[in-house]
Amino acid sequence: MEETSLLPFPNSRKIYVSGTIHPNVRVPFREITLSKTKLANGYEENPAVRTYDTTGPAGEPGVTPDGSLKLHDIRKGLEATRHEWIVGHGDVEEYEGRVTRPEDNGYSNGEQLLHSKETGKLEYFPGRKKKPLRARSGNAVTQIAYARRGIITPEMEFVAIRENMLAEQETSNMIRRNSLSFQHLGEAFGARIPKRITPEFVRDEVAKGRAIIPSNINHPESEPMAIGRDFLVKINSNIGNSAVASSIEEEVEKLMWSIHWGADTVMDLSTGKNIHETREWIIRNSPVPIGTVPIYQALEKVDGRAEELTWEIFRDTLIEQAEQGVDYFTIHAGVRLPFVPMTANRMTGIVSRGGSIMAKWCLAHHQESFLYTHFQEICEIMRAYDVAFSLGDGLRPGSIADANDEAQLAELRTLGELTKIAWDYDCQVMIEGPGHVPMQLIKENMDIELRDCYEAPFYTLGPLTTDIAPGYDHITSAIGAAMIGWFGCAMLCYVTPKEHLGLPNKNDVRDGVIAYKIAAHAADLAKGHPGAQLRDNALSKARFEFRWEDQFNLALDPPRAREYHDATLPQEGAKSAHFCSMCGPRFCSMKITEDVREYAREHGVAEGEAIALGMAAKSKEFTGQGSELYVIEGIGSPSSIPE
Amino acid sequence: MEETSLLPFPNSRKIYVSGTIHPNVRVPFREITLSKTKLANGYEENPAVRTYDTTGPAGEPGVTPDGSLKLHDIRKGLEATRHEWIVGHGDVEEYEGRVTRPEDNGYSNGEQLLHSKETGKLEYFPGRKKKPLRARSGNAVTQIAYARRGIITPEMEFVAIRENMLAEQETSNMIRRNSLSFQHLGEAFGARIPKRITPEFVRDEVAKGRAIIPSNINHPESEPMAIGRDFLVKINSNIGNSAVASSIEEEVEKLMWSIHWGADTVMDLSTGKNIHETREWIIRNSPVPIGTVPIYQALEKVDGRAEELTWEIFRDTLIEQAEQGVDYFTIHAGVRLPFVPMTANRMTGIVSRGGSIMAKWCLAHHQESFLYTHFQEICEIMRAYDVAFSLGDGLRPGSIADANDEAQLAELRTLGELTKIAWDYDCQVMIEGPGHVPMQLIKENMDIELRDCYEAPFYTLGPLTTDIAPGYDHITSAIGAAMIGWFGCAMLCYVTPKEHLGLPNKNDVRDGVIAYKIAAHAADLAKGHPGAQLRDNALSKARFEFRWEDQFNLALDPPRAREYHDATLPQEGAKSAHFCSMCGPRFCSMKITEDVREYAREHGVAEGEAIALGMAAKSKEFTGQGSELYVIEGIGSPSSIPE
Repeated sequence: MEETSLLPFPNSRKIYVSGTIHPNVRVPFREITLSKTKLANGYEENPAVRTYDTTGPAGEPGVTPDGSLKLHDIRKGLEATRHEWIVGHGDVEEYEGRVTRPEDNGYSNGEQLLHSKETGKLEYFPGRKKKPLRARSGNAVTQIAYARRGIITPEMEFVAIRENMLAEQETSNMIRRNSLSFQHLGEAFGARIPKRITPEFVRDEVAKGRAIIPSNINHPESEPMAIGRDFLVKINSNIGNSAVASSIEEEVEKLMWSIHWGADTVMDLSTGKNIHETREWIIRNSPVPIGTVPIYQALEKVDGRAEELTWEIFRDTLIEQAEQGVDYFTIHAGVRLPFVPMTANRMTGIVSRGGSIMAKWCLAHHQESFLYTHFQEICEIMRAYDVAFSLGDGLRPGSIADANDEAQLAELRTLGELTKIAWDYDCQVMIEGPGHVPMQLIKENMDIELRDCYEAPFYTLGPLTTDIAPGYDHITSAIGAAMIGWFGCAMLCYVTPKEHLGLPNKNDVRDGVIAYKIAAHAADLAKGHPGAQLRDNALSKARFEFRWEDQFNLALDPPRAREYHDATLPQEGAKSAHFCSMCGPRFCSMKITEDVREYAREHGVAEGEAIALGMAAKSKEFTGQGSELYVIEGIGSPSSIPE
Repeated sequence: MEETSLLPFPNSRKIYVSGTIHPNVRVPFREITLSKTKLANGYEENPAVRTYDTTGPAGEPGVTPDGSLKLHDIRKGLEATRHEWIVGHGDVEEYEGRVTRPEDNGYSNGEQLLHSKETGKLEYFPGRKKKPLRARSGNAVTQIAYARRGIITPEMEFVAIRENMLAEQETSNMIRRNSLSFQHLGEAFGARIPKRITPEFVRDEVAKGRAIIPSNINHPESEPMAIGRDFLVKINSNIGNSAVASSIEEEVEKLMWSIHWGADTVMDLSTGKNIHETREWIIRNSPVPIGTVPIYQALEKVDGRAEELTWEIFRDTLIEQAEQGVDYFTIHAGVRLPFVPMTANRMTGIVSRGGSIMAKWCLAHHQESFLYTHFQEICEIMRAYDVAFSLGDGLRPGSIADANDEAQLAELRTLGELTKIAWDYDCQVMIEGPGHVPMQLIKENMDIELRDCYEAPFYTLGPLTTDIAPGYDHITSAIGAAMIGWFGCAMLCYVTPKEHLGLPNKNDVRDGVIAYKIAAHAADLAKGHPGAQLRDNALSKARFEFRWEDQFNLALDPPRAREYHDATLPQEGAKSAHFCSMCGPRFCSMKITEDVREYAREHGVAEGEAIALGMAAKSKEFTGQGSELYVIEGIGSPSSIPE
């Protein structure tokens, strides 16, 4: 019923731009080729539009002779393109690594992993199985550590080229009517977005902790990306099986599906059986950073009994996942014992899974959270692999009634405290945020985060701006996401239509990702990210010129745009028609505007500025006539209207 | 594939509240009955929630013995409940009215209307065919005229009861945890929303022109509603056949469908054949105000040749539609000749159909628009029937690049001029707005409108906050709509997923209406409309207590919420389960929060405030311990981070 192909979008091809500091940096973009515009006296070229591309090598699938899709071989995984860069610093070492145990996959009682041949279910990842890397002798091998030492890593140059492409096109490839195209300066609320994003700028932002580049040294398959408010707003897509539904093969497919639509990072929130192996498949096939919530797996290891969690089990889980290559960990170290009672009187208590697990542990033991008391040891692990902190908001509001309350803000202050500690260990940090927040409290939430967490990047779930629309929470939350993105939030965690109701299927993932691409892009426009408006302009020009195919191809979701058009006018000829089904040929306002321009041409004024100038003179003439033609009698003064 | 029933939502019934000034005023609400909450020691009642209801008498369909739907008889139309109120003023008269001509239905060359028996197509509306009413001897029979004379009409009392219901429930029916429930005061940006909406307040707002109650005296079937920024934000749904697709029966069904989901007004934008008769069917069956764009029909009468339009044809069309009962007319009187050249250099020229028709006329004749030169005569018609002006934004931006440009703002100033003239004629006025506007320009747009149009209600299409997502423009625009609603916009014209691509089907109408109900409600919350948060709170409480059925029934779209839940957990038992498919039983954070509360209870502290107090003492104890347990060493000062 819905298009589900992973084939590249029409008229799109992958291109690469190489680094100059690091020539082995190759940054991918998707280039959308456009057709020409027919003019009265010939044709006008429309330059191709290059877009940010998250699909990685999987974004170039082949096609078999029978026309079906030939994906990259997910049993081999992606190439380890970052490997040379990682070992190039000379500060990492290979080591034996931790031995995978049955309980890592949830089989504490001696059960075995299921093999696909017998059951159609998961098998062990068969591809490259290398020894893990870690920092040598207590080094920090993090992007922030290098940045602070003044080093521009290949990752940083990669990010700079990636983020600067829009501005690049703005200057070199400007589309027609450029006097009008970028008239609106955004308002960036204290962000310092430069006109050109350079490797030096990236380095400095990372050094200050204002941006992160999640890049575990054991995930060499990843394409570097930055999360920070001076960069393009990013979006995260959650995948993950749960105890109740879904299989592992589906999770790998959901990863591919998420990045096909444009997710910048993916969190694997799997619980239940086989989570270690699911994660292996996902990371080995992911060109985007992967995040996890390690406490979920730790809880599986104690059969779901929160009170049986220990620091040792948690620590071991961190190392297990760091060795696999997870790029950022959500850690709910801000859920402190004294904050738990603040939630008892809430409308919706604690709604974060990780937060509630830790709250339960704190109460059961009547002790401060081990995540808080062992935070420095956690930092030591994170710096050894460059796993970034995503400091979890375990006490985020689960309803409009609980927004920006005491519990939420107490936790946020603690996250600020912890940020400083993590920075002291040269760890990369971002801060998670709500949740459910009415519109008038969103800016306050962002401002408090920037103040209390010292400008560490904010990463929010929505926020949802009302509670009354289950089934449409991708929309209730896209509203809040766009706003907080404008106000300075660096990454938006998507919400699907199934939020609060069930597990998302592929169509829900698509709807959620696109809703969030919209929110992120609306925020980029509002912030005034250089060149962000280029694609809007190219699409609007195509729309106005009835270049239907170009309009579809420039859309965030080309197949759906085409499908919706064809629902009313399926004939191929309609795609070159100078009208559409909404108004029909007679009423088409765009057609009439063409007539207006045509009229202007026929009457001897040239196109462009000349029209405006020439006609403006005529306008004055008519303004004079107008006031003669139309003498207004008896206009009431404002005071004649009863107050 | 989607639920398409017009049956009332589950556990809902219609109730009526009577007026006190006018006892024959009966205001409908939908009351949603909720189940009890199970407590440790018994049950707690959850009061029913009353919601604003737009479905009219059609919202109470019967059910036939075989379980199928029995709608009201659309061949008879709705009851003329306002008739007594209208004639009660003693200032209207019946008269013969204009004779319907073949060209009213687009048959200028002697063709005849098609009858359903032969063709399955439209027949003449068979129900009540009364003589039209008009004002006696030049009177103004408008709500603003009565208001200025200090009269509280039945329509005004109806509106007051309707708008005040949320505040009413807030005080009398408060839900648990009321100390937290309404903690957030909205920020209303100069709106003056009172704690209680009284008939006197409604009258005063209408008198000042800050609100309108569209209520043509020839549409006695309508249920009065107010459009103004001190009231709940309203939404409009567009229906209408076009020359290319769709039939008349579908249009009546789209009306029913729109109000089923909550549209506050409906615009009939039909073009092509049979538009007079389509409109008759729609108005006779509509409990909500109907708006039109009369220039569309006028253009049909001159076979689509804009340059052949005359003031006489347009004037005749206004009277034709006023006699039928259209409640507001979009009139593009602000598209003046001198403004037309301002659009020549735009990215997307003129995108309003009405605007482009008038622009073409102006250029062809080299004359000022007849809508502008004859504006006072238009006012004389409007006041005689109480048709409200919706002053059209014919020069609205059709792309981000054109937002808030010279053409748009020049037209807006003209609309302000015209507003004063219309007010001088005791006409009701609202102002139409864009369109496509990036987030950072939305507030400016609203502020300019309030200033230049003297606080006349603003009625915007979206605005869309980016151009790059055809297929999802209900979302790109819901973002802008929520924001401008918060900033003071009184009514939001919906956008469906098919915008820019094709004609919406029923499912698109549903998606569009719900997206806009979300935007309007998010704005009501942010403005701090008294009691707006009540439904959010009731739904969140139900969600937290695993009262699944109540959560579905309180949703804006109950069938979809249920359908999405059942997609993962179809078993009936799952709807009383204390977990859901997202996390499964083990990981459920809400379950764990219950444990937290349970723990608190077991340890001898009572629920509610007592917990917070009792535990707060414990918290202090642990805060002390915490700082002993966890001595932070070597925290870097901010200056240790490289700037």
